[in-house]
Amino acid sequence: MTTAGQVIRCKAAVAWESGKPLSIEEVEVAPPQKNEVRIKILFTSLCHTDVYFWDAKGQNPMFPRILGHEAGGIVESVGEGVTDLEPGDHVLPIFTGECKECAHCLSEESNMCDLLRINTDRGGMIHDGKSRFSINGKPIYHFLGTSTFSEYTVVHVGQVAKINPEAPLDKVCVLSCGMSTGFGATVNVAKPKKGQSVAIFGLGAVGLAAAEGARVSGASRIIGVDLNPSRFEQAKKFGVTEFVNPKDHDKPVQEVIVEMTGGGVDRSVECTGSIQAMISAFECVHDGWGVAVLVGVPNKDDAFKTHPVNLLNERTLKGTFFGNYKPRTDIPAVVEKYMNKELELDKFITHSVPFSEINKAFELMLAGEGLRFATEGSSFFIQTCVVLLFLTLVCAAANRSSNRS
Amino acid sequence: MTTAGQVIRCKAAVAWESGKPLSIEEVEVAPPQKNEVRIKILFTSLCHTDVYFWDAKGQNPMFPRILGHEAGGIVESVGEGVTDLEPGDHVLPIFTGECKECAHCLSEESNMCDLLRINTDRGGMIHDGKSRFSINGKPIYHFLGTSTFSEYTVVHVGQVAKINPEAPLDKVCVLSCGMSTGFGATVNVAKPKKGQSVAIFGLGAVGLAAAEGARVSGASRIIGVDLNPSRFEQAKKFGVTEFVNPKDHDKPVQEVIVEMTGGGVDRSVECTGSIQAMISAFECVHDGWGVAVLVGVPNKDDAFKTHPVNLLNERTLKGTFFGNYKPRTDIPAVVEKYMNKELELDKFITHSVPFSEINKAFELMLAGEGLRFATEGSSFFIQTCVVLLFLTLVCAAANRSSNRS
Repeated sequence: MTTAGQVIRCKAAVAWESGKPLSIEEVEVAPPQKNEVRIKILFTSLCHTDVYFWDAKGQNPMFPRILGHEAGGIVESVGEGVTDLEPGDHVLPIFTGECKECAHCLSEESNMCDLLRINTDRGGMIHDGKSRFSINGKPIYHFLGTSTFSEYTVVHVGQVAKINPEAPLDKVCVLSCGMSTGFGATVNVAKPKKGQSVAIFGLGAVGLAAAEGARVSGASRIIGVDLNPSRFEQAKKFGVTEFVNPKDHDKPVQEVIVEMTGGGVDRSVECTGSIQAMISAFECVHDGWGVAVLVGVPNKDDAFKTHPVNLLNERTLKGTFFGNYKPRTDIPAVVEKYMNKELELDKFITHSVPFSEINKAFELMLAGEGLRFATEGSSFFIQTCVVLLFLTLVCAAANRSSNRS
Repeated sequence: MTTAGQVIRCKAAVAWESGKPLSIEEVEVAPPQKNEVRIKILFTSLCHTDVYFWDAKGQNPMFPRILGHEAGGIVESVGEGVTDLEPGDHVLPIFTGECKECAHCLSEESNMCDLLRINTDRGGMIHDGKSRFSINGKPIYHFLGTSTFSEYTVVHVGQVAKINPEAPLDKVCVLSCGMSTGFGATVNVAKPKKGQSVAIFGLGAVGLAAAEGARVSGASRIIGVDLNPSRFEQAKKFGVTEFVNPKDHDKPVQEVIVEMTGGGVDRSVECTGSIQAMISAFECVHDGWGVAVLVGVPNKDDAFKTHPVNLLNERTLKGTFFGNYKPRTDIPAVVEKYMNKELELDKFITHSVPFSEINKAFELMLAGEGLRFATEGSSFFIQTCVVLLFLTLVCAAANRSSNRS
């Protein structure tokens, strides 16, 4: 019996108020409307951004809400106008989209779609502004257009990457956000050449994915920079060859790196969002050819500040968003990199918990770096000096029997 | 009779003290030593940097000195170890060099040679620290390793570009510095695609050369930004299609440009050295793909400051030096662009004066923008919002009969 066109009743983890445990509830998921897709979520992972918007410090609180934005699933049904996806397709929902029609989508260089660029304040669907989730007729807000902490969710077709159906969704789901962000920052933006040196600021998940990008690119030296020395052992698995803790030195870390590399690294990738780390990441690259890439999102009031001669001496400073990947066009090929064993993902996954124990995942993440988490600023996505590794929430299909439609 | 190996006595314009008229004197020019070349200068042009170091405000004064660094000439003799130049070669001496052996020279991306990078404080030759110029045994300091205000000069082989002997030296001499700097900033660094929009900050000589680069690249809109509205008419000859005077608006010029272009220009090139213009040039480029290139050199104490989100939204900020051209490897091809009529140079040359009247050239340049010149900071090379156009000093060969060696 098809569920297409019907309301689906299923389990979702609802955040009723900021900072309080999520509650597994039965929700109603309306059918997809124009340019929308309804997806059966099989696996979702937890990212600090979910925790950040759940904690809702410094933003407008929007509750009740279904969080979650890193996931893998299967298309259940499609709405009007959706021609490039069909039920049964394996997909990753992505927190930012690609309409394929705006100036950004038509540009070879940009992935900052005018229509579907990340919007953390939107609680409904673009088509009609309304939510597709409800409990007893009361709407529940969406999050990032993905809301993957639900057995079924509705997503704009522009935010859905169709991937190889043989790819294991419990692994590739992490490509929905952080892994692609870090990996792409290195391979698409910093673009180290074989044999070059790369400094990675922040050895959380995104930073380690950036290091993975440097490893895959054949970097000769991968210098990890972090305030937490316990991260170095683990970072070695990701190809990091040297470690610098700014606390160990009485001069700015950029000077330490310039000295240890005889003039600076060839490339740097900043994944902490600390404004000081951003400045250090820029000033530690070699004159003449050095490229620094900024990934981490700083506080609203921070100012990037440097002496212009650092630029005039032929350094390049670039920012990136989602690793410069276009979600629909590029992410399927990143999944293929995993399938071809070019890109390693398994090492990023530290825990698996059943969906019913989703609050345990929040606890694990908060316990991991809880102290520093609370001090982080207004960043949107993963603060990689904070999150240690992703936690994969295994939503076994067997748990999803509540679908009553 | 050969002059090789002999001291040459010839005329040179000597700066005896800061700000005082140059004095045409008979000087002795020693033979080139190891890795040096002696060049008969036929034409030299005047750049604001010459005036700046003659004025010697804000730097360590170094007098007596022979200034000049934009010139064309013919090799008279070569020193030990020089294998790729010989007497009779047509050459441009360049204020910065290319040793072809250091990490910068071996990098495809850099032109900031470790050995021969511009050095304004050096008054002698690298080989032995001594000057090749003297008057009655008293040494006269070199300037930038070029000292082209002399009928003969000695230059390190790494600072000599061998060019097509058919190229008119009275025209291509301006490629020694400012023209290449501006043109290269656009074509080598900003790299606008055909049909893209380009904003040029500062419509002096370097800015106009940057505009020439945009025109040659097929830019659809070239927006000139300058505080002096009288420059627009002239800028039209260089392909500038629109003009914005920041004084005409009550909001930051970057906002004006973002509005008139529906989101920002595709590329910008900053040629004034004003820190505010640098920030505006960066913030006026389109998110997703915009590239801003900094050319002008600001005051020592200036800080480049922007909100990091301007970077994170996929803008690129790059600095350039001498248009990223490697002097020996790349400049001969720029001369060919002129020979092929791809690049126009004649329109950059406004006046010609005989060498004996070199002080008149200084007066013409100072009169052009004298008021603003005095206010410029510690920049090294051309402040393009200051210099209007190059002045070519015609050093007719007939005037050079004082060679008595």
